[in-house]
Amino acid sequence: MIWLKRLCLFIGALLLLGVLTVGFWVGAKIVLYDQQDDATHLTEKKRYLESIGKLDRSTDRPNIVFILFDDLGYGDLGMTGSQAIKTPTIDKLASGGLTMTNFYSPAPVCTPSRAGYLTGRFPVRAGMPLVLFPSSSPINNANRIFGVNNRFPAEEITLADTLKASGYATGMVGKWHLGDQSPSLPNDMGFDSFFGALYSNDMTPFALYRNKTVAVEAPADQSRLNEWYGREAEQFISNNKEEPFFLYLAHNFPHIPLYVPDEDKRRSSGGLYGDVVEGLDDVVARVITSLKANGVYENTIVLITSDNGPWFQGSPGHDRGRKADTFEGGMHVPMVVHWPARFKQGRSVSGLSMGMDWYPTLLDWLDIPLPTDRTIDGKSLTAMLEDGQGSPHDYLYYFDGENLRAVRDERYKYHDEPRIPYAGGTTPVAARIAKGPWLFDMMTDHNESYDISGNQPDKASSMRAVLEAKRNEMLENPRGWLSSPP
Amino acid sequence: MIWLKRLCLFIGALLLLGVLTVGFWVGAKIVLYDQQDDATHLTEKKRYLESIGKLDRSTDRPNIVFILFDDLGYGDLGMTGSQAIKTPTIDKLASGGLTMTNFYSPAPVCTPSRAGYLTGRFPVRAGMPLVLFPSSSPINNANRIFGVNNRFPAEEITLADTLKASGYATGMVGKWHLGDQSPSLPNDMGFDSFFGALYSNDMTPFALYRNKTVAVEAPADQSRLNEWYGREAEQFISNNKEEPFFLYLAHNFPHIPLYVPDEDKRRSSGGLYGDVVEGLDDVVARVITSLKANGVYENTIVLITSDNGPWFQGSPGHDRGRKADTFEGGMHVPMVVHWPARFKQGRSVSGLSMGMDWYPTLLDWLDIPLPTDRTIDGKSLTAMLEDGQGSPHDYLYYFDGENLRAVRDERYKYHDEPRIPYAGGTTPVAARIAKGPWLFDMMTDHNESYDISGNQPDKASSMRAVLEAKRNEMLENPRGWLSSPP
Repeated sequence: MIWLKRLCLFIGALLLLGVLTVGFWVGAKIVLYDQQDDATHLTEKKRYLESIGKLDRSTDRPNIVFILFDDLGYGDLGMTGSQAIKTPTIDKLASGGLTMTNFYSPAPVCTPSRAGYLTGRFPVRAGMPLVLFPSSSPINNANRIFGVNNRFPAEEITLADTLKASGYATGMVGKWHLGDQSPSLPNDMGFDSFFGALYSNDMTPFALYRNKTVAVEAPADQSRLNEWYGREAEQFISNNKEEPFFLYLAHNFPHIPLYVPDEDKRRSSGGLYGDVVEGLDDVVARVITSLKANGVYENTIVLITSDNGPWFQGSPGHDRGRKADTFEGGMHVPMVVHWPARFKQGRSVSGLSMGMDWYPTLLDWLDIPLPTDRTIDGKSLTAMLEDGQGSPHDYLYYFDGENLRAVRDERYKYHDEPRIPYAGGTTPVAARIAKGPWLFDMMTDHNESYDISGNQPDKASSMRAVLEAKRNEMLENPRGWLSSPP
Repeated sequence: MIWLKRLCLFIGALLLLGVLTVGFWVGAKIVLYDQQDDATHLTEKKRYLESIGKLDRSTDRPNIVFILFDDLGYGDLGMTGSQAIKTPTIDKLASGGLTMTNFYSPAPVCTPSRAGYLTGRFPVRAGMPLVLFPSSSPINNANRIFGVNNRFPAEEITLADTLKASGYATGMVGKWHLGDQSPSLPNDMGFDSFFGALYSNDMTPFALYRNKTVAVEAPADQSRLNEWYGREAEQFISNNKEEPFFLYLAHNFPHIPLYVPDEDKRRSSGGLYGDVVEGLDDVVARVITSLKANGVYENTIVLITSDNGPWFQGSPGHDRGRKADTFEGGMHVPMVVHWPARFKQGRSVSGLSMGMDWYPTLLDWLDIPLPTDRTIDGKSLTAMLEDGQGSPHDYLYYFDGENLRAVRDERYKYHDEPRIPYAGGTTPVAARIAKGPWLFDMMTDHNESYDISGNQPDKASSMRAVLEAKRNEMLENPRGWLSSPP
């Protein structure tokens, strides 16, 4: 009666599994992670921001408008080859400014990417390796069981903190997605004013806030997002034209679900997604018009990019992969830099750069020193953008948010365990090969099709060593805290 | 004590699940599916083949060499734009013959695709909707529990059956993957001779057979596949040069795992995958050289294509998706037609066609009538290829093997539930949108990025109706049996 024996074993195993699951759940509830901020670095942050406030300021400092789209793909714009979508405003800004053709978001998903842009640090450093869910969501509680942060650590220093300390008016319009509770709300993290959403537009309840108060009850009518965000951006510019300002316009679109006002329906050849992107181009046009109307167009730095590659829809151009992948399609995003006062001619810049570079680059341009109590992973792009020099990076590191999965230099990209989303396990051979490692020659194989690690073992192992070194560095000091200067 | 109640419910549910699982397993063992052939259509098959044998034959009939690669991607050849891989022989055949730029494999995975090519019928019609596993594999038994065929139904009529009945010498070299037992082996299904593997090269035991006898014990040294397959192809051509012949050369590569002989290592810029593909080009060169040496080059039809898109490695060109997807990257494959006696100038043909079309096309060219007891889903491409007319298809149907997932006409493609392999379910909105339906405009959006179903609801619903009609037709008569003529 071998089957009877197996039956008993099977039922026994199920029982054991049940007991373990329940025990774990009950135990976890007891030790539910209660996120604490870091008192030492909160003090350091305060000291740093105070020191910035005491610096001499030049008289004609540029304004900064950082426009971040959500899930916009590399191929979704006229300037990057779309045949279905027209984006004349962005195209014109690109042709009159700098187009960075090898620019990467800090991560292939929302929350970590935004943390990277705002702090100049890898998302893990900034304490935001994973996508956040609303406090009311069961996923949020599940994450807390595993000790995952559910809000931006208050000791992090944002671009808004720094610019505000330096005398900038700081305003945010759009999607935050770095925690829906104090002390991690936009107004807690450097923004004088905030109008927008606390997380993605597919999460509920989807309300819009003005500072810490609900301004539009959930469910907000998303077909009016352009109207509201455009208006708020214009008002912020108009209200602050006399002093230097920093506007962070982080639109929720084209992240799903997609909505447009009636007059935008069917305007593009790219369906509702295309209609939405063409509407986003109009929002950019409103910003530009407003800058001109308020006489600050010449000396305003306008940055336009995306938080990661396209999700279900949207085009990654000719890249492999999409949002959530560390293949190029997950992180290779459009990047336009427009600053008439400094960059007088349109140029394309092919050097490697990543979202974390904007924090140190902007501080460099404004003569503001970096914090010294923490690692800033980004590097100033000044030499690359102004003097035609190469990238400041020998290597770019591709985190999926939490895990370091790939590294590239100018020519090669090394994947340690790429995410191959399907069909990985039908045979042991297939499962093994799907795991990598893979080395790609980005010069002849930009869409990451041919692993050359077997043919170039020395290059593969040197890239692996670079990746391992960074991984070890991150393990030893994940938040990148440095001992303070004496 | 709400948690105690929940605990009891949970343990109860686990117990129930366990009992059900065990009961199902035991029950299934008792009713393990025992595949039967269809006596009626076996008789019809015999009658059809006999009738063909009695037809008058023209004197100078062309030879046919059908070269099918395994998992070769659309972008993996010089002729389709590879910068990493050189395929001078295939490129030259293409430039001297017909290049079909909108050709699709019958399915995005091995077994169904091969069934479609050989029978001219959708894989479901041919009784082969799913990938087969070796008889010794547990997956094979698991499939049998669910009533899945594990070998090519003997009543299916293959291209080899038909050509053999018409007086052709028929030889197969390479991978079969339509069952590893009689009466479904290559020699049972129309091939006079067979040398090769019964399934994919990542499945074990991987032996090579000459007809029904093991010729190379498992594990066969796959670095010698080119040597063996090339030699066998040459010998078949040389042995049969006096009569018309049909050679089906279905190479196992570039399906993983990949091997090359030492002299091919590092020959390409595309790593081991590229080395393998360049070696495949050499095998094609051996075939062409052999055709010339035997004086049959002018009147031999050489067809070169792939069974589906690329898997982990390999390039889908600019298409979205890969093997197993019904996005273009899963089924859009290179297709070269070379026949000096008939097609004197190189041409590119953009009309829609699919792998099932070769069976009726070749029979058309050879004046052989089609079977009348069964639906042939393919259509003759004669007018499209010879007279510059459009596609014979109003619509192409994309089966994932088993399920009809998409349909396209010349301009639009409609997906009912595309396979979105990752990140589909983090929110209810995302899960819903990942399910489709999606309508793409292939003219402006070849990489399937923008769903226009909301903007063109009439087109979407007419395409949906076309898909539903085909789905209903398949449900009513999956094998497509027709009542015989009186």
